[in-house]
Amino acid sequence: MNETRQAVLESLEVGPITGPDIAAEIGISRAAVWKHVEALREAGFEIDGTGSGYVLGDVSGYTGPLIEYGLSAPFSIEYHDTLSSTNERARELATAGAEDVVVVAGVQTGGRGRLDRKWSSPEGGIWLSTVERPSIPPARAPAHTIAAAVATTNVAREVGVDARIKWPNDVVVPADTDVGYAKLAGILTEMEGQTDRIEWLVCGIGINANVDPSSLPEGATSIRANAGAIDRRTFLQRVLERYDDARRDLSGTIEEWRDRTMTLDRRVRVIRSGEPVVGTAVDVTEYGGLVVDTGTDRVVISAGDCEHLRPA
Amino acid sequence: MNETRQAVLESLEVGPITGPDIAAEIGISRAAVWKHVEALREAGFEIDGTGSGYVLGDVSGYTGPLIEYGLSAPFSIEYHDTLSSTNERARELATAGAEDVVVVAGVQTGGRGRLDRKWSSPEGGIWLSTVERPSIPPARAPAHTIAAAVATTNVAREVGVDARIKWPNDVVVPADTDVGYAKLAGILTEMEGQTDRIEWLVCGIGINANVDPSSLPEGATSIRANAGAIDRRTFLQRVLERYDDARRDLSGTIEEWRDRTMTLDRRVRVIRSGEPVVGTAVDVTEYGGLVVDTGTDRVVISAGDCEHLRPA
Repeated sequence: MNETRQAVLESLEVGPITGPDIAAEIGISRAAVWKHVEALREAGFEIDGTGSGYVLGDVSGYTGPLIEYGLSAPFSIEYHDTLSSTNERARELATAGAEDVVVVAGVQTGGRGRLDRKWSSPEGGIWLSTVERPSIPPARAPAHTIAAAVATTNVAREVGVDARIKWPNDVVVPADTDVGYAKLAGILTEMEGQTDRIEWLVCGIGINANVDPSSLPEGATSIRANAGAIDRRTFLQRVLERYDDARRDLSGTIEEWRDRTMTLDRRVRVIRSGEPVVGTAVDVTEYGGLVVDTGTDRVVISAGDCEHLRPA
Repeated sequence: MNETRQAVLESLEVGPITGPDIAAEIGISRAAVWKHVEALREAGFEIDGTGSGYVLGDVSGYTGPLIEYGLSAPFSIEYHDTLSSTNERARELATAGAEDVVVVAGVQTGGRGRLDRKWSSPEGGIWLSTVERPSIPPARAPAHTIAAAVATTNVAREVGVDARIKWPNDVVVPADTDVGYAKLAGILTEMEGQTDRIEWLVCGIGINANVDPSSLPEGATSIRANAGAIDRRTFLQRVLERYDDARRDLSGTIEEWRDRTMTLDRRVRVIRSGEPVVGTAVDVTEYGGLVVDTGTDRVVISAGDCEHLRPA
């Protein structure tokens, strides 16, 4: 949003205020005020014209300018009602040099998870991908997945959902299913770069927010099913703010991760270099690797499928 | 090369052989034989027409078909007389889905090393980039840099150059310079993918082969300056064959690396998370990280600048 429009918006926040008063305050013409007010309405801001001037109304709409409005994290928002995949669009922006942009879609028609698995992304969910250019080697990129999992879990807990983390990239809720949990959110981190420094990183986060679980695959659940419908704009803003904090303090984030995980102290089966490894998940490394005690050895798994087993 | 042309070439290898005899052997027309012979000549194969038939002559030219000819590694070759950068072209091919292609250029006009540093790439050098799609996580990609360094060092030693490896990505020759060595070759590995599996990997190798060191930057040397001019085609083929072996046997490759490095047992200064670390390089990990003993601690550096210091 440009500076003048931002100034008009700030005047409206303390309204009611008349057009001429705004014009005088900012030092622009009345016609310019009118144009900016119209543009703000176009962007989704409810602005009522009352007898005593303009009044800013509901700002809970789900548009780029509204998500940016009141967001305390250095991201600009690119919103689309429908996209094939937010990660795909984020990769395009990343390749073109973008930084700290977040792509948000109302619906994804071709959402994907790890190993190119389909990720159902209907209306009502929160589907987003960050575009970042951190100065880290590729080996540290999994820490961004951890940061996103911690951020999503924390905000879900704030609205009353008993969210836990399942290593490496799922946010789940304990449930009476075969595996003992249902999926609430998933994270897919992609990158391009050299062996010692990545060029860009895209962190995709898909949250089953205001979604009816019957429109999701088996084994999935939603925020709405656990705690009622939420304000998507506010929820998304909180996730981005928490994520921004978490990516700046990765060691603190690992501590939070340990506290919120369902995977530690569990018997797990993971795949390492194509071979299954069975053991007890005992720790997570600084960069998000899972430490598995096999009874004879301790191995670190950098990423991959992780199946929770019944106690031996 | 298509199968019929390959068959014509194989007939020529045992020549002299007449056009009609080739035609009869393969079961194609005499006119077709003539067309294939012309195409092979066009591709750089010397084929002499003598009284007793065609004779295959010199095949030491530096073209795509000639580099593929006799190559015992599963790569196809895309050759360009001049390219801005072989890594750039390789990334294009990788993005389009290519696999096991090697881009070779006679000259690079915009060659780059780590941290976007200029890499001088005049006529006479060997400038190549592989396009690969290995099923590995990004954290393991540095092992390809190690494989390329071992391959280049081994082949340089075969032609009589006292090549050593300087961690992470240089092949050097001991020399009476401030730092104690001169650069012979450099390696730049790039990738794109997800945190647990890369999509593609490009390994760029630049070798100062038949180059006059006066046309290279200060601190660089060449194969020619150390051991005389070499046959670039054969040298490149040997490097690709050794690299192909090395990437399939990464644990064996690390052993070879340890044996050929200049960096182990040295005092070094490396940069880790933006902070300098000074200590003795004591080992290299399975995936190519450098283990530095600081006196109070052992830290693993995944990649970065490494400065060799004088003994304390």
